[in-house]
Amino acid sequence: MSDRRLGENVRIVGSGLLGASIGLGLTARGVDVVVDDISPSNRRLAIDYGAGRAPRDDDAPGLIVVCVPPDVTASVVAAELAAYPDALVTDVASVKQQPLEELERLGADLSRYLGTHPMAGREVGGPAAARVDLFLGRPWVLAGHPAISYRRAAAIEDMILDLGAVPVEMTVDEHDRSVALISHVPQVVSSLLAARLVGGDGGALGLAGQGVRDVTRVASSDPQLWLQILAANAAPVATILAALRADLDGVIDALERLDSDAEEGARRAIVDALAAGNAGVARLPGKHGVDARYSQLVILIDDSPGELARLLTEVGELGVNLEDLRLEHSPGAPIGIVEVSVLPEALARLEAGLTERGWRIAG
Amino acid sequence: MSDRRLGENVRIVGSGLLGASIGLGLTARGVDVVVDDISPSNRRLAIDYGAGRAPRDDDAPGLIVVCVPPDVTASVVAAELAAYPDALVTDVASVKQQPLEELERLGADLSRYLGTHPMAGREVGGPAAARVDLFLGRPWVLAGHPAISYRRAAAIEDMILDLGAVPVEMTVDEHDRSVALISHVPQVVSSLLAARLVGGDGGALGLAGQGVRDVTRVASSDPQLWLQILAANAAPVATILAALRADLDGVIDALERLDSDAEEGARRAIVDALAAGNAGVARLPGKHGVDARYSQLVILIDDSPGELARLLTEVGELGVNLEDLRLEHSPGAPIGIVEVSVLPEALARLEAGLTERGWRIAG
Repeated sequence: MSDRRLGENVRIVGSGLLGASIGLGLTARGVDVVVDDISPSNRRLAIDYGAGRAPRDDDAPGLIVVCVPPDVTASVVAAELAAYPDALVTDVASVKQQPLEELERLGADLSRYLGTHPMAGREVGGPAAARVDLFLGRPWVLAGHPAISYRRAAAIEDMILDLGAVPVEMTVDEHDRSVALISHVPQVVSSLLAARLVGGDGGALGLAGQGVRDVTRVASSDPQLWLQILAANAAPVATILAALRADLDGVIDALERLDSDAEEGARRAIVDALAAGNAGVARLPGKHGVDARYSQLVILIDDSPGELARLLTEVGELGVNLEDLRLEHSPGAPIGIVEVSVLPEALARLEAGLTERGWRIAG
Repeated sequence: MSDRRLGENVRIVGSGLLGASIGLGLTARGVDVVVDDISPSNRRLAIDYGAGRAPRDDDAPGLIVVCVPPDVTASVVAAELAAYPDALVTDVASVKQQPLEELERLGADLSRYLGTHPMAGREVGGPAAARVDLFLGRPWVLAGHPAISYRRAAAIEDMILDLGAVPVEMTVDEHDRSVALISHVPQVVSSLLAARLVGGDGGALGLAGQGVRDVTRVASSDPQLWLQILAANAAPVATILAALRADLDGVIDALERLDSDAEEGARRAIVDALAAGNAGVARLPGKHGVDARYSQLVILIDDSPGELARLLTEVGELGVNLEDLRLEHSPGAPIGIVEVSVLPEALARLEAGLTERGWRIAG
C-alpha cells in the first residue's frame, strides 16, 4: 500500500457499477471508503462485495465521489457540497457541461467541485457487476473549469492514478464533443441498426454472424440512462448525426441509381463511403481488436485434455510472460487455436522456443 | 475418414480465404481436392498451405466450387459448366440472385448449378488466412432454384456437412433479402459511422473504448469487394437503409427540439428508438458476446508466472473440458481475470472443485 497517492478518506454516493468499482479499487489500496446510496439494498450489496463501509455520523470525507445517474448528478453534488463544507466533490457522469451549468444555477461552491468521466463500463450495471480493475489503463477525463485550482483538485487525480486509470484533462466543452463522437453517436447508430432486426424474419436472423453482433452489441444498453445522456448532450450529437445522414442519403441515392441503371458516379459514391469508413477506423488508437502494445502469436493445439496447460507450462519455462490469451475452439474441431499476446521483445524467443519444442505455430 | 459423406472429387476455383479454407477442410477429410486460381502465386500458396493439389489434364471433378469475387462469379461458373460437362458446380458468392440471372442470360446449364453462401469469414483475406475450421457450426445457405433437382445437388450438401457447417435452404430472393438485413446494411452503417472519425480530433479518439471499436470493426473491410456485393443487392439494401433514415430523422429532430426547449414528445421519441434497438438485439439467436451453449465461470488469478498454467492443470484434474477461455489482464493489475466456458452440466463441479482448491471465483 506504500505506493498509494490518495491521502483523503473517500465517500462514494451511489453504489452502482461505477461507484462500487471505485470503492473496491480504493478499498484494495487501503483507503477508508464510505459507500452511500439512496437504495439501502444496493448499499448493503455494495458493502457485501467489499466496496467500503456504511456511513457514520462522524464521517469527515476529504473527497466525495458522486456516482448517480446524469439527471440527478448536479442536485446530489450540490447537496454533498453543502453537507460537507470542507470536502472536495467530483462526479463520474457521462456529460459534463450540463451538470456544471446546473451547479452554477444552484449557486454551488464550484471552488470545491471538478467533474470527471472514466471511460470504462460494462453492459451490465449494479454493484454485483463491479470489478476492482474496471478502470485499469482506461482514460479518465478531468473536465476542467476556471473556478477550481489545480492544487484543490489534486486528490481527484490521485484517486484516478490509484485506480490505475490514465488522467486526461479537457474542458467540459471538449469532453462533451469528444464523447458525442466516440460514444453517444455510436450508441444511437447501433440502436437504429438493431431496430431493423425487429421486422426481420427468423430465417434471416438465423444467418447472423459476428459482424452484425458487433455492430449492434451496445444497442442492448439501458434506454432510460441513454436518454439522460443524449438529452444532456443533444446539440453535439445532433450535429454529427446530421453529417452521417447526409452521407447516408448519398449511399441510398447511389444504390437506387444502380438498381435503375442510372449508374453514372454511383459506384464511385459507394466506394468513397466505404473508403471513408476504412480511414476512420484507422484513426482509432491501437490495432483493432487486439492490444497494440503487444505482439501476437497463434499456436495450433490438439483438442485433447491438458494440451493448453502443457502449452502454458512450456511458455512459462521459456521465461515468457503472457499479457493476454485467447482460445478459439469450435466444437468438433480437431484443433484449438490459441492466440497469445506478449511484449514485442519476447516474440522471437517465444516463437523459436515453441517451434523447437514441437508446437505448431500458425503462418 | 469413414464418416465422410462426400464421394466426389472436388475442384476449387479461386484460392482466397474461402476457397483455401474449403480445400483445407476437405483435404483433411481425405477428399481429392484440386486447387486452381487465375493467380499462379495464390494457387501455389494455397497448395503449400495444404488446401489441395495442382490441376492435371485428366482431372474429372464431380463437384466444382467457384470461390471468386461476386462480379466474376457467373462467368467463371459458366466456363466451368462448359469445361466439365459432367460436373456439378456451385459458388460461394455473397449474393445469389444476380449470378443466377446472369447464368440464365448466358444460357448456362442450370440443371448442374446451385449457388451457396457460407456465413463465415474473417477480416483478413487470401490463402494465408485460411482455417480448416472456418465453417464449423456456421450456417451455409443453399440458394435453391427450380432448374436443379434435390438429388442432383446432394453432393453440395454433403460437402457442407463434411466441413462441419449447417445447411440452410432458401430461395435466392430470401437469401438476398436476409443478407441485406444481417450483413450488407450493418456493413454500410458501420462504414458511415466510422467515416465520422475522420474529422475527429486526436483527444476525442484517445477516449475511444470497446463500444465504438465494436460498432466500427467491420468498417475496415475491403471497399472494392463490398461495392460488388452492395451493387449486386442494391434494392434490398436501399429499402432497409431508407427505413433506417426515417428513424434517424426522428432522432435528429428530437435532439434538436430538446436543444431548443421544444421538448414535447422528444424524450419519448428517443427512448422509443433506443428500446427498438433493445428489441432488435434480443432477436439475434444466442446470448450476446458469449456462446450460449456453454456456461461461464470467472476466476481471479494472481499475476505471477505459471498461475494460469496451474489453474488449467487443476481444471484438467477435475475432469472438466474447457470449451473456451478468455484471459483479461490489464498491465500493472495485481490480478488477472480468467473467464472459462464449460458445458452447463460441468459448471457446478468446476466451481466447487476450484473453490475447494483455494481459487477465487468472481461473484
